Amino acid sequence: MWTKHPPNCMSERESKPRGPYDELRAELRETDLFASIGAVLSWDQETMLPDRGTGLRAEQLALLSQVVHERRTSERFGALLAESEADESLRDDELARANLREIRRSYDQAIKLPSSLVREIAETTTLSIHAWRGAREKSDFSAFAPWLEKVVGLDRAKAECLATEDAPDLYDALLDQYEPGADTAELVAVFTDLRKRLAPLIHDVTGAARQRSDRVHRIEVPIEAQKAFNAKVAARVGFDFEAGRLDTSTHPFCQGVGPGDTRLTTRYREDGFFDALSSTLHETGHGLYEQGLPKDRYLGEPLGDPVSLGIHESQSRLWENLVGRSREFWKWALPEAQREFSPALDDVALEEVYGAMNLVQPNLIRVDSDEATYNLHIMLRFDLERAMLSGDLAVADLPAAWNDRIKTDLGLDVPDDRRGCLQDVHWSMGSIGYFPTYTLGNLYAAQLWLRIQSDLPDLPDSIAAGDFTPLLAWLRREIHVHGRRYTAPELCERATGAPLSADAFMNSLEGKLRPLYAA
Amino acid sequence: MWTKHPPNCMSERESKPRGPYDELRAELRETDLFASIGAVLSWDQETMLPDRGTGLRAEQLALLSQVVHERRTSERFGALLAESEADESLRDDELARANLREIRRSYDQAIKLPSSLVREIAETTTLSIHAWRGAREKSDFSAFAPWLEKVVGLDRAKAECLATEDAPDLYDALLDQYEPGADTAELVAVFTDLRKRLAPLIHDVTGAARQRSDRVHRIEVPIEAQKAFNAKVAARVGFDFEAGRLDTSTHPFCQGVGPGDTRLTTRYREDGFFDALSSTLHETGHGLYEQGLPKDRYLGEPLGDPVSLGIHESQSRLWENLVGRSREFWKWALPEAQREFSPALDDVALEEVYGAMNLVQPNLIRVDSDEATYNLHIMLRFDLERAMLSGDLAVADLPAAWNDRIKTDLGLDVPDDRRGCLQDVHWSMGSIGYFPTYTLGNLYAAQLWLRIQSDLPDLPDSIAAGDFTPLLAWLRREIHVHGRRYTAPELCERATGAPLSADAFMNSLEGKLRPLYAA
Repeated sequence: MWTKHPPNCMSERESKPRGPYDELRAELRETDLFASIGAVLSWDQETMLPDRGTGLRAEQLALLSQVVHERRTSERFGALLAESEADESLRDDELARANLREIRRSYDQAIKLPSSLVREIAETTTLSIHAWRGAREKSDFSAFAPWLEKVVGLDRAKAECLATEDAPDLYDALLDQYEPGADTAELVAVFTDLRKRLAPLIHDVTGAARQRSDRVHRIEVPIEAQKAFNAKVAARVGFDFEAGRLDTSTHPFCQGVGPGDTRLTTRYREDGFFDALSSTLHETGHGLYEQGLPKDRYLGEPLGDPVSLGIHESQSRLWENLVGRSREFWKWALPEAQREFSPALDDVALEEVYGAMNLVQPNLIRVDSDEATYNLHIMLRFDLERAMLSGDLAVADLPAAWNDRIKTDLGLDVPDDRRGCLQDVHWSMGSIGYFPTYTLGNLYAAQLWLRIQSDLPDLPDSIAAGDFTPLLAWLRREIHVHGRRYTAPELCERATGAPLSADAFMNSLEGKLRPLYAA
Repeated sequence: MWTKHPPNCMSERESKPRGPYDELRAELRETDLFASIGAVLSWDQETMLPDRGTGLRAEQLALLSQVVHERRTSERFGALLAESEADESLRDDELARANLREIRRSYDQAIKLPSSLVREIAETTTLSIHAWRGAREKSDFSAFAPWLEKVVGLDRAKAECLATEDAPDLYDALLDQYEPGADTAELVAVFTDLRKRLAPLIHDVTGAARQRSDRVHRIEVPIEAQKAFNAKVAARVGFDFEAGRLDTSTHPFCQGVGPGDTRLTTRYREDGFFDALSSTLHETGHGLYEQGLPKDRYLGEPLGDPVSLGIHESQSRLWENLVGRSREFWKWALPEAQREFSPALDDVALEEVYGAMNLVQPNLIRVDSDEATYNLHIMLRFDLERAMLSGDLAVADLPAAWNDRIKTDLGLDVPDDRRGCLQDVHWSMGSIGYFPTYTLGNLYAAQLWLRIQSDLPDLPDSIAAGDFTPLLAWLRREIHVHGRRYTAPELCERATGAPLSADAFMNSLEGKLRPLYAA
């Protein structure tokens, strides 16, 4: 680290850059310092912040958002970008062209948003997250409704700024922030395909005569011991703890602050050992991507940034589901866990864990859901948030709409809003357009996995031996190292040889679940 | 909190301020948001930051320092200040006059420092703190020496900017940042008086036939249980955990981030229950001051700021020493601790704890030292840092000079630099001029305590009953609520009726120690 940021970097900064592109990059880097400060504050807000510090934090984050936005939309920045694009010496520099393509993309979006709106969104959502947390605890939707109203209004205002004559759809405008280039019509098509195969599979499996036991999900393991084990597994799969942390929060997340600083959280229950480990593997997947991005070289530049949330999520899903629910993984992990927690897991057999990790059981809670029904949760949120954005669904009617849909899709009755429409933080953050990237992540992960299996024929053996190095090396090479050099569809094509579809996901899921539930 | 920072404060900000003074205050408030962000990052650096995140953190903190400095020295700010000073309508507003006096003072100092120097100091010291930490761990002064060289050089550069023709002394210029208005000659006089009475007292007590047992300092108490107890005591004396935290760090500190967010750290050893509690009481004293300052009303303004480090330290010393080493405190705390940690402390008697809390025993480590010998540590640092600043003492010669002086003053041999000149973080932070405020804090605390005892005749009884409300109310009223309205000497005169001297401190110490060590 020391060599990357030598104490004499003052003088480096003061030395004259070579041209507009270097100045542009220096500007991006400095702006990203403010953004990375915001990342620390957000992490702190979720894990450390005293209750009464929320007001100050809202102002701090709002101010940082405004600074970042003003710098990213300044006249000087726009001029440097235009000069860089016109710079003939970069004509054949493929990396520079990719960088400029994405800088242009972000700039063209950013200048559509007034700075006051950006600041207002940041300030309001910090407070609204706080309100959501209180309302969720008390299962009191009415305490959150005015905030949701405000936040949906701000999302709409933002979408109206971002939408263009060519692309007038408000939801598309929001979606594009998380999954650049994706559009609603495309998503609807993929989701329709997915539902067509998913619904009968869920129907068959949940109705099968043979059911898997969930006994292991009730075994109690002391939380302090779980913490040590989760950290050990995260380190084993490749997370660098010299450059990151693993903490506890209500809603697990990964915050990539910057080079050398990636922060994961997970959550523990005494009778939730297997859930906690899943959640840790999920966040570790995000964290490995963050640690694998070339941020040291390209801090603040698209070449050092993740491609899209769908691709980000593919990395977490791959570790959580394709590794973490596999028989091979548990061949290694179960004896490790048994040794660590003896005698709690002594009488647990590999097949029992494998069955329990692949239980299909409709659940009120998205993050507690299995690989199959999970996607129905996403489709529900995708539909309801589009309806709220368009105004077809009033915020006040959200709980009823939610509960109806849970009944239809999952056959469950929602007993309270805490386990209904108050369960997720996203809407309180103003993140309409975010949810569908979760299902995109599932689909990308499965399609990548198919290719990985053919590229690495020894993978099952190495995973069963607790050696995750070949897998991580593949991901580093094919995904992480590229930053935003390629778009998500390009990256998918390059890595897997085909455009994204629901096929790999459904084939993999059917191939796993049908035998597990066969009579 | 919500009512203080309503979500519609955007519109407040956008509404036209009434005059230059209001604009000046708004500007100070926004600048302080950046400073408060820096406070969160500094806290995080000491408690949470992954090792490899140090480089990025250095850049983040340097950037924030620069932003804060540029805002505090901008032409616009200077113009607003001058207009406010000229504003006739404020002529009789005593609070505004006090505020403007201190804003002017800070501004006149700040404009003397070039922005590049401020940024360089911030960046270098973040890295140098990291280097110090590594060097201290390995007791390797040579690894720290080049950093100390750099930092002393930067301190000298800063002092040269701040010194004036009227006040050319470089050390005075640095001291003034921490203890506004104090000067070296004055300190030398007070310290000389202090040493005159302290040296014979230490001599008599350490040579007394009767010695106190330190047995209780070796009793082991599990750390997790200590954590709960320390938090309980901090809350009991009045620290508001809805607006603050208590964590663990190598070097205990208090970080006042802003309204609603004050963060304490302490440190634990299994055989260090009494030390940990002392350290917690110390930091809680700082924290109570931070929480008692009127930051909600005056965020970023002198009226919401602490007076000086000496006064800040008086608050921590008062709780650590005058409360926490008193018989009355332990009348309440010992039974509480015995209940909590039973059977570990079952056979401990009140007099044994009282004796052990007031042991006088020269110690290599400043923060482990008793109330009496502690001040010799400060005088040593005061002399050596002045010598380094002036160039009379080369950085390379620091360990030898340190060790000689420890031998002369405390009669101890320094076995390694970890327990010698590498023990404190301050110099790595570029904080030359900071140390003497610790002894000032001791003296202020004793002088305040004398007055408190006469104002609150029932204090011993209420402390023995675990009721700290009257004491905290006195401190809130006489010290905390005033922010920087009065200078430190004024505040001392107002609260105690006399200028600062070493008398109250020495009288109190002699009155306590001589009976304890009498044959």
